[in-house]
Amino acid sequence: MSKPTIGFVGLGAMGFGMATHLVKEGYPVHGFDVFPASVQRFHTAGGIPAASLKESAAGKSFYVCMVASAPQVQSVLFGEDGIVQALPQNATLLLCSTVPASYAQAVATELQSCGRSDIYFIDCPVSGGAIRAANGTLSIMAGGTDEALQSGRDLLQAMSAPDKLYLVPGGIGAGSNMKMVHQVLAGIHILGASEAMGLAAQLGLDARKTADAIMASDAWTWMHENRLTRMLEEDWNPGASALTIILKDVGIITTSARQAHFPTPLCSTAEQVYLSALLQGYGAKDDSSMVRQYFATPIAAVAATEGEDQSVKLQLVLDLMRGVNLVAAAEAVAFARHLHVDLGQFHGLVREAAGASRVFINQGLEMIEGRIGDKAPAGSQTLDEAVARLETVVQRARDLHCPLHLGNAALTALLTARRAGFGGEASTSVIKVWN
Amino acid sequence: MSKPTIGFVGLGAMGFGMATHLVKEGYPVHGFDVFPASVQRFHTAGGIPAASLKESAAGKSFYVCMVASAPQVQSVLFGEDGIVQALPQNATLLLCSTVPASYAQAVATELQSCGRSDIYFIDCPVSGGAIRAANGTLSIMAGGTDEALQSGRDLLQAMSAPDKLYLVPGGIGAGSNMKMVHQVLAGIHILGASEAMGLAAQLGLDARKTADAIMASDAWTWMHENRLTRMLEEDWNPGASALTIILKDVGIITTSARQAHFPTPLCSTAEQVYLSALLQGYGAKDDSSMVRQYFATPIAAVAATEGEDQSVKLQLVLDLMRGVNLVAAAEAVAFARHLHVDLGQFHGLVREAAGASRVFINQGLEMIEGRIGDKAPAGSQTLDEAVARLETVVQRARDLHCPLHLGNAALTALLTARRAGFGGEASTSVIKVWN
Repeated sequence: MSKPTIGFVGLGAMGFGMATHLVKEGYPVHGFDVFPASVQRFHTAGGIPAASLKESAAGKSFYVCMVASAPQVQSVLFGEDGIVQALPQNATLLLCSTVPASYAQAVATELQSCGRSDIYFIDCPVSGGAIRAANGTLSIMAGGTDEALQSGRDLLQAMSAPDKLYLVPGGIGAGSNMKMVHQVLAGIHILGASEAMGLAAQLGLDARKTADAIMASDAWTWMHENRLTRMLEEDWNPGASALTIILKDVGIITTSARQAHFPTPLCSTAEQVYLSALLQGYGAKDDSSMVRQYFATPIAAVAATEGEDQSVKLQLVLDLMRGVNLVAAAEAVAFARHLHVDLGQFHGLVREAAGASRVFINQGLEMIEGRIGDKAPAGSQTLDEAVARLETVVQRARDLHCPLHLGNAALTALLTARRAGFGGEASTSVIKVWN
Repeated sequence: MSKPTIGFVGLGAMGFGMATHLVKEGYPVHGFDVFPASVQRFHTAGGIPAASLKESAAGKSFYVCMVASAPQVQSVLFGEDGIVQALPQNATLLLCSTVPASYAQAVATELQSCGRSDIYFIDCPVSGGAIRAANGTLSIMAGGTDEALQSGRDLLQAMSAPDKLYLVPGGIGAGSNMKMVHQVLAGIHILGASEAMGLAAQLGLDARKTADAIMASDAWTWMHENRLTRMLEEDWNPGASALTIILKDVGIITTSARQAHFPTPLCSTAEQVYLSALLQGYGAKDDSSMVRQYFATPIAAVAATEGEDQSVKLQLVLDLMRGVNLVAAAEAVAFARHLHVDLGQFHGLVREAAGASRVFINQGLEMIEGRIGDKAPAGSQTLDEAVARLETVVQRARDLHCPLHLGNAALTALLTARRAGFGGEASTSVIKVWN
């Protein structure tokens, strides 16, 4: 069976991989980008160059939009010579850009009001990075009408791994919300990796050994594992994942949270550090360069101090990450619940994606299933114990003059829960701060 | 009546002023410092140089210790050739250094255990800066036994303004606690001044006009007024009030708070920014240089953008300060209450000292007097209104890529109070977060 012709706009790091993968899968793909060099590169890779935005859309029954931000989407869809007026009747339009759910909903409304309610519109942000984009193994979170999802399903599946296409209940906006609550974890864990490794350096720990110990422990995060090599090698210019990218996603989170009057203390804290680094000129650098916010010189060059207290120091780093990951899990689950995101699907998605942490997989599930307070598993760490461990880390960091933005914000959340009377309960009860 | 002979150690910026003022008042003052040049300078100014620590104490019935930190105090008092063994029977010892209350109490215990319970020991940190030190118009917060305070009172009064000697009830440690809760406000407002002026620069506001408007408004803080000239002139090297000084005081606060498992979110947030700046090499610079954490170039050079929206932009800056100052007041009052500090005295002290803000003077008093919730003054701003105003500021700063560390932390506290159901109450109900 021949593959349908696809229109595609946005041939950046992600979009180029997605579009060329579709080419390899046998789809005729007409690609456009505002940068002619990107179109030329796509042509060289076997794609069909489109001379204009309009040309990329005219006659294409399937269209993928993978530009960087909501303002770009607005221009591409509804600007002068935008694609909406060029698409044929009953075309299927996949919006893969990461945008606020409220913006995706505004697009649906505008399609209606401009007389194009015939278009099958799908709100389907992606996750997984450039390599998985090029391999067609992305995670995709797709929301829309049943008819739209039915129409777009083969194309969505062609870009995603067999078990990583999530049809998210809730219609337009649901896909974007799912991506957003996933990014709560990603946005915190990216900084968390730098904070942990920066503290390790301040403590005089060997960076590689510390990282290996983190990855073998329940302090593991996907981001830690993923960013580690670039952090150690200071492979930042240009960034494989630029600071500006996670900053954009975090901005969507905190803006949406403010609209809901919902506190996201760790994500907001991370955002301030990202903004500080932006001010210092780190915007285009890889986000693993955030380690510079904690340690002034390459951490790989730290000469480990010898002695029996190495394991004690390592424990501090692990305790920091556990504490931060715990509050991150609570913040993400609480925000997802507030947005009526399907929590079971959320957990299944995160555990296989960039927002994963061992703590989220385990304690996050307990939060989702309500196994907190007196329903917590026997032997769970108490909130008082979590407080004591994080207090020890924060004090040690302070004595070393090491900033600990996330550690402090997480401790504030835990102490707030403790003052509310949950100290003797399982540490997962920290989620009650958001009740 | 002839003045008694005084021993004095610690002839730094503050101590030199205090000691030379006592000389002017007619006290024979024997001064010592680890830096011989400081002793020589004191000699030139009319003081009596002491050749050693021991010599500064031998035969002196009154002794003032004004070294920089608890470890220095420990060495001066109890180290080899320390002053305690040299002081005569029934000497009066004034500890004016800023130290944790728990440390002042440990000194009292050690005096007992080394057989010097005869010494009249007074825990009496000072506030006011080098100029007021030299004028003998400091604020002094003195705790100790009635007998000790009686013995030391004339000397304390000689160094303080007529109405700024506070005899703090509660014995040893009470003076230090009073200073500490005052510094909660100082530590937040110092960063708050930079955050407000940094945001103003990002908004394209004229720095001087903005500052004048702040000072004429209910967003006024003593720190804003005091730091402003140095901030505008970038008069930072060396710092009139070095970053390391406020960082030390904030460290005492957050360490003591952790020992009490008490959350101090704004102070902890400020501390992280100070630590970040320390890492960037700002330690010896004036703390008004913190404006660099918000704006990369001199704010005085910002060319104000013309237009009718100047007043709208100014309103954002004022709203930021009001929101931060409100939560700062709540944090300080809640912590003071937790430590059983005399709240009436606390308020009286702060309103005349470096921690003052218009918001603390007014709303802080309402919090102290329990005029919150349904007892709040008619027409008070509601918590919901405070949330809405601060959300608008935080969003605008985000759109400008301006970090807003304190604004975000304050918003988290307000949103937490809102979620707890206090949105319709007066904004002062934010203090209930600490209940």
